[in-house]
Amino acid sequence: MPVFLSTADETFEPAFAELLSTKREDAPDVDAAVAAIIADVRARGDAAVLELTAQFDRLELTPGTLTFSEGEIEEQIAKVPAEEREALELAAGRIRAYHERQMPEDARWTDAVGAELGWRWSPVSSAGLYVPGGLASYPSSVLMNAIPAKVAGVQRLAVCCPTPGGAVNPLVLLAANLAGVDTLYRIGGAQAIAALAYGTETIRPVDKITGPGNAYVAAAKRRVFGRVGIDMIAGPSEILVIADRDNDPDWIALDLMSQAEHDESAQAILVTNDAGFGQAVAAAVDARLRTLGRRAIAGASWRDYGAVIVTRDLDEAVALSNRVAPEHLELCVADPDTLAEKITHAGALFLGRWTPEAIGDYVGGPNHVLPTARSARFSSGLSVLDFLKRTTVAKMSPEALAAIGPSAERLATSESLEAHGLSVRARLDRLNR
Amino acid sequence: MPVFLSTADETFEPAFAELLSTKREDAPDVDAAVAAIIADVRARGDAAVLELTAQFDRLELTPGTLTFSEGEIEEQIAKVPAEEREALELAAGRIRAYHERQMPEDARWTDAVGAELGWRWSPVSSAGLYVPGGLASYPSSVLMNAIPAKVAGVQRLAVCCPTPGGAVNPLVLLAANLAGVDTLYRIGGAQAIAALAYGTETIRPVDKITGPGNAYVAAAKRRVFGRVGIDMIAGPSEILVIADRDNDPDWIALDLMSQAEHDESAQAILVTNDAGFGQAVAAAVDARLRTLGRRAIAGASWRDYGAVIVTRDLDEAVALSNRVAPEHLELCVADPDTLAEKITHAGALFLGRWTPEAIGDYVGGPNHVLPTARSARFSSGLSVLDFLKRTTVAKMSPEALAAIGPSAERLATSESLEAHGLSVRARLDRLNR
Repeated sequence: MPVFLSTADETFEPAFAELLSTKREDAPDVDAAVAAIIADVRARGDAAVLELTAQFDRLELTPGTLTFSEGEIEEQIAKVPAEEREALELAAGRIRAYHERQMPEDARWTDAVGAELGWRWSPVSSAGLYVPGGLASYPSSVLMNAIPAKVAGVQRLAVCCPTPGGAVNPLVLLAANLAGVDTLYRIGGAQAIAALAYGTETIRPVDKITGPGNAYVAAAKRRVFGRVGIDMIAGPSEILVIADRDNDPDWIALDLMSQAEHDESAQAILVTNDAGFGQAVAAAVDARLRTLGRRAIAGASWRDYGAVIVTRDLDEAVALSNRVAPEHLELCVADPDTLAEKITHAGALFLGRWTPEAIGDYVGGPNHVLPTARSARFSSGLSVLDFLKRTTVAKMSPEALAAIGPSAERLATSESLEAHGLSVRARLDRLNR
Repeated sequence: MPVFLSTADETFEPAFAELLSTKREDAPDVDAAVAAIIADVRARGDAAVLELTAQFDRLELTPGTLTFSEGEIEEQIAKVPAEEREALELAAGRIRAYHERQMPEDARWTDAVGAELGWRWSPVSSAGLYVPGGLASYPSSVLMNAIPAKVAGVQRLAVCCPTPGGAVNPLVLLAANLAGVDTLYRIGGAQAIAALAYGTETIRPVDKITGPGNAYVAAAKRRVFGRVGIDMIAGPSEILVIADRDNDPDWIALDLMSQAEHDESAQAILVTNDAGFGQAVAAAVDARLRTLGRRAIAGASWRDYGAVIVTRDLDEAVALSNRVAPEHLELCVADPDTLAEKITHAGALFLGRWTPEAIGDYVGGPNHVLPTARSARFSSGLSVLDFLKRTTVAKMSPEALAAIGPSAERLATSESLEAHGLSVRARLDRLNR
């Protein structure tokens, strides 16, 4: 049974605080193992990658078969049924259109003292995208990572996707193809992250690594951070639904289950201003859990981490949601836009009764790689900005230097940085001659 | 003696590759010690922070004196000479004006199928800024971290600045005051980072931690990443100057030394298309190194990591600079704007002969917290974006859901995520009734 809470109860605050602080992922401490794998790949390159792939993925490769060949990719892609291809193409087009709007603009202006200032954006040259193998090998995640990179202008985009026992997901290859991925490697785990960060004889190093993965992949990304850029460390998925009584309880139940079915550690929370509606949704969830294909996973998530919270009104619901900072937030109410104005922390907003979160996972347009585990308090979903960097620009005229240089010299002196001050002073002296 | 290289030499490529791969910072492995400090602060709160401060900073505090009192801040600030205050105020005003231009805009549009899409930016609620104590306690860094946070709209901004032996830098307190910092703690090291991330009885936890620090601080930031947001892990400073023969060699020498004087591990590189000019700058550096206050530090940096590289032309200089991806890049040439167009990786650009890098450290306006150690390949300097996060927005009309829902359902089915598909299907069925 999920937790049932009401803000009217005296015990609400400690119970909600406990819900907030519950650690859902008991990440195994794989750091030492990962450090050894990274050191091995750095020392022995391909040989280490091949051995580790044989060991972990039960797959014997050679340097020549580390990379999917063009022929093989074409052969796999040809297996994809037309209607799945069309759906993936629709998704790719919508994701591309959304992310193209995110491209930031360069700026340049001249200020009152005559200093020219501004910034310029430029893409990361190369990026590597990690795609998990096996059950959680999602073509939609390939699109969500690769398309922003290509929209940003990344020249060289590599994908690492393990194929345990040799099993290949044709849709993943098609997604990579549609998104414009340049190279596809058949490797995974910490060894793939190490190879992307440091390079091997066969695998060219990249400047930025993104994409979800298991505890080994997450630990490896954390370790190579600095050598290369990384995106976030993603945790289990979450949804919070704020719903009034005028929703179909079954719709809301399905929305909750669509996150719960991801992972036993996923979390689905309903916040409603109507206790009876909360009960009705819980009943609808129970009914759905009798037949859902992934009922074991979704049921465990709902039982262990699910919650139904009854509030006095919708504003109180928003205040609680802001404390949770959920990855996905549905506002299933009559006037979702007004409520949305009050949301301060959430990865993605889904407004109104006709926007199930699953739309955002595939075809909405916004990215589905979003901050989990309350990190929407301080971070954003993946975007083109993750594949761009900004260079600031300053250009002083002699007059501008004369106007602000003395202050720079004074501050440099106060920080005991003499050469800083002299580099300004030498130029000012020339002006004063 | 610094390295002298010429692209005309046969041995250039391996020598340049070695320059690129030289590790300048031999970071001690303090990770185990930092893990223990973090665990201690989490377990014992204030008591641990007070003990560690007594141990590392030789300073006996109480929970009541962990925080600078208003009276003490006023007393310290009153000591600052008027001309230093004016310089700091000029810097603060210019930094604020620059960063206000960085504020991104929200977006909302309706696409061809009738889906409303967009995003909203919102500030991080609270941030903590680390300011090193002792010699490298720079008021300019307080401005550079705190002002973007306040421009972004961060409600609660805390600063941790250790005061070893009780020594306080009045300019740091004034900078914090000018920037609108809300709380100032007299603590440092890994214990300060742990306290900011997890909170203690006296210290409220924050959502994001920024600012430079020693190896302990860097390791602690890496460890608390995920619990809170962090900025980059900063390394020793770097400058690359591209200069033609029409510069005063002494100006360029001073610009190089203004980075070299920061740290024995700092790096200053001159790239010029004129060998004679390169020699002249090297001679000017030697002359300056005889008298500079920080000549021991600057001299060691120049000797161990300095380089003069002679190229055939300026385009070749740009190509080399892009491989370095320097933190600071000066283009001391006749037409810096044309050359700047070809720069793909650099933290900050300083254009023309009248823009010494030191201007950017204090009063230019752009941020001086910039990517080091070649990380300008994939990251940017500090900006208001570091204190904001983006929430994506999607709102489907029934018609929009009818148009794109079936594709979402199909992709969900192909990923074996049944509830995802059903959450869309239930709504489509209602429309079809």
